[in-house]
Amino acid sequence: MKKILVLGAGLSSSYLIKYLLDHASTENWQITVADSNLAAAQLKIHNHSHANAISLNIMDDGARETTIAANDLVISLLPPTLHIVAAKDCIKHKKHLVTASYISEEMEQLDAAAKEAGVLLLNECGLDPGIDHLSAMKIIHEIEERGGTVTSFKSFCGGLVAPEYDDNPWNYKFTWNPRNVVLAGQATAKYLENGVLKFIPVAHIFEQTEQVTLDGYGEFESYANRDSLGYIEPYGITQAKTVLRGTLRKKGYSEAWNLLVKLGLTDDSFVIHEANKLTLRKWVNAFVPGTDLAQLENRICKHLNIDAASDSFQKLVWLGILSDERITLHEATPAQILQTVLQQKWKLQSGELDMIVMKHQINFRIENSELRIESELVVKGEDEVLTAMAKTVGLPMAIAAKLILQNKIQSRGVHMPLSKEFYEPILTELETYCVKFVERESQLN
Amino acid sequence: MKKILVLGAGLSSSYLIKYLLDHASTENWQITVADSNLAAAQLKIHNHSHANAISLNIMDDGARETTIAANDLVISLLPPTLHIVAAKDCIKHKKHLVTASYISEEMEQLDAAAKEAGVLLLNECGLDPGIDHLSAMKIIHEIEERGGTVTSFKSFCGGLVAPEYDDNPWNYKFTWNPRNVVLAGQATAKYLENGVLKFIPVAHIFEQTEQVTLDGYGEFESYANRDSLGYIEPYGITQAKTVLRGTLRKKGYSEAWNLLVKLGLTDDSFVIHEANKLTLRKWVNAFVPGTDLAQLENRICKHLNIDAASDSFQKLVWLGILSDERITLHEATPAQILQTVLQQKWKLQSGELDMIVMKHQINFRIENSELRIESELVVKGEDEVLTAMAKTVGLPMAIAAKLILQNKIQSRGVHMPLSKEFYEPILTELETYCVKFVERESQLN
Repeated sequence: MKKILVLGAGLSSSYLIKYLLDHASTENWQITVADSNLAAAQLKIHNHSHANAISLNIMDDGARETTIAANDLVISLLPPTLHIVAAKDCIKHKKHLVTASYISEEMEQLDAAAKEAGVLLLNECGLDPGIDHLSAMKIIHEIEERGGTVTSFKSFCGGLVAPEYDDNPWNYKFTWNPRNVVLAGQATAKYLENGVLKFIPVAHIFEQTEQVTLDGYGEFESYANRDSLGYIEPYGITQAKTVLRGTLRKKGYSEAWNLLVKLGLTDDSFVIHEANKLTLRKWVNAFVPGTDLAQLENRICKHLNIDAASDSFQKLVWLGILSDERITLHEATPAQILQTVLQQKWKLQSGELDMIVMKHQINFRIENSELRIESELVVKGEDEVLTAMAKTVGLPMAIAAKLILQNKIQSRGVHMPLSKEFYEPILTELETYCVKFVERESQLN
Repeated sequence: MKKILVLGAGLSSSYLIKYLLDHASTENWQITVADSNLAAAQLKIHNHSHANAISLNIMDDGARETTIAANDLVISLLPPTLHIVAAKDCIKHKKHLVTASYISEEMEQLDAAAKEAGVLLLNECGLDPGIDHLSAMKIIHEIEERGGTVTSFKSFCGGLVAPEYDDNPWNYKFTWNPRNVVLAGQATAKYLENGVLKFIPVAHIFEQTEQVTLDGYGEFESYANRDSLGYIEPYGITQAKTVLRGTLRKKGYSEAWNLLVKLGLTDDSFVIHEANKLTLRKWVNAFVPGTDLAQLENRICKHLNIDAASDSFQKLVWLGILSDERITLHEATPAQILQTVLQQKWKLQSGELDMIVMKHQINFRIENSELRIESELVVKGEDEVLTAMAKTVGLPMAIAAKLILQNKIQSRGVHMPLSKEFYEPILTELETYCVKFVERESQLN
């Protein structure tokens, strides 16, 4: 019998734990779900005979180490900064670890120790990062096997509301951490375009969008992610003249969001004292030159050089931020106040489903031919619990865990899933769960 | 005999130490100038019979404490974050402390302990903060004594090049810490306007300037400082509907500086790796949409919506940032690269003098009269060492030290110089050094 420990039983754990429970009998697994909230852990395991729920404070070194030592493999769904404490225990007790988070510098430094202990610390094995790596590396390796060279790599991903429930002017609802959505685009974006190093300052990220079409799902737009340059070496695409990763939204979102950025409403760097003495209208008024509250709409349009009839301005109005509703937070940054507004307006209602979209657009040269592969993925949520986000984040980790316990993965040390031993079996099994890319190739010259 | 310890013998210490030496015989002082660089300390004391220079590592707790214990009063010219270690020693050994820096939270928390020890920890006693407090409080108290109420408080200050040496298109040269100038305006500005709370996001600070005229010195412009709201309580101007503090530059500076901000060249949040492989032109090119290096000038003008013939664009060109000169820094933020460029172009040359300008504009009501007091200060440097900046930062500290040692200051605990016991004698003595405000009053209604 193999023992799997899942650290964290939050919203995103549903599909992962379901997969583990579904495979527990055939694989002869014993699953332990640990959370500081015992009830949350119990809820996830449904009294399954191969599973148990425990209460665990991850910062309790003794309890954590004992629990990890008693298992064969750990899947950490903890906040990214906490993986490191689990990773150190895993090395000490020679247990494998799987996470869906970016490899931190601290994690990177455990590589030699992990190799020496003979364990795999597999990170970035969720959706983004995760399925993006798996699917991109499969295409890149296939191009290389055909003797081709990647000349341009673009990859886009977004978590959105399913079209059937897309009924607000922003064409957006929260399907994951709202704070991350509000703080998106608050660092300079770095990428490569036609061989030229490109930076987009925060003030322009939502202006310099790229149009992206997904077959059967219409027009999207992408704003640039923080660091596309960091993918060149790991993906081995050093000949590519263009390397860009972006986040997908429905068309028109970025232009309207940019108004919130320009006004300063996404600012998370200072606290407004006694914000609850303000109405939303007075809060916005503070950011617009002039003082006449009755003229706020006109002043905003003049300040931002937009038309009051424009779709973008109407999106702002729809949010209710120009209303006389009182702010409920006492001490809060503008970003926190905006988040409370958006959580009401962009709430995924009971019964509504989310959707994940991902697209790679990879140009390559074989001899004198310029070719393009476009690969698209659309995943819709199954229900409110088994969301597309939980599915695409959780399944790659669960499948990787199975492969590791079956001794089908030989990598040791700190890794992201870039090699064939990861992407081939994981992508194949994901297809049986309808997580399947549609690929087409075209000639460019 | 009273013993004074000066911590730090950097550029800004010249006038302060000169004052102390000039008064050492009559006041019966022994002056110790301590610096990690012994030569710098020796240079400042000119073998004066009442002074000695010592080498001191401020982080050497034993040496620092022994030195402080052997003196009666400490003047700290250390970097702001280091005052706190000196302050704690001062409390322990019951010595007074004078600094020109803002009161940090840590410093604030020493108030009770300082009172108990019977010592004064006097901060914000330089130019800005310092002379601004002294001169503003004098006016505010005089208005209150006349039965008036302050309705609007605006205060501006700038360190500039003297008009005789103002010979570049920016009308600006570095006369103090270049890094602070490059990073200015990188936090949301907060102020009060006509009773309305106002915030200016970073992206708009250099757009929303205010025109300021100084008698005989022409047109200046002011961009808003980070936090004007924090002055309302200490100054006791709670009835004021407008409270704004700003930094002065010559007219046209802010519009051109704003172009650098919009391009992203003042960004200090990320490091460009191997920057020395880039020319300045390629560095700027990275921030402008598109890639055609030959079209960079046109692309900048289009991106920023400006005319190539405009003064602002010509200021950028004059900086040489569109040239093929190679960057010398290896790993550097955009702000650091920009700073190296500006340090060449904005260098105060040998023999050139600096200038300090300050202006208060205070509206008040007495019965039914609306009145205004405008108070202006202009100080020019005496030579390259005895600069206006060193003079206006150093003299208030030196005079305060004298008054404290003469037992003419009764305040104990953590203070900034807001009360009459500070501003009356200090402003009076400053006038004998030609640091003199010119005040005029006018009727507004």
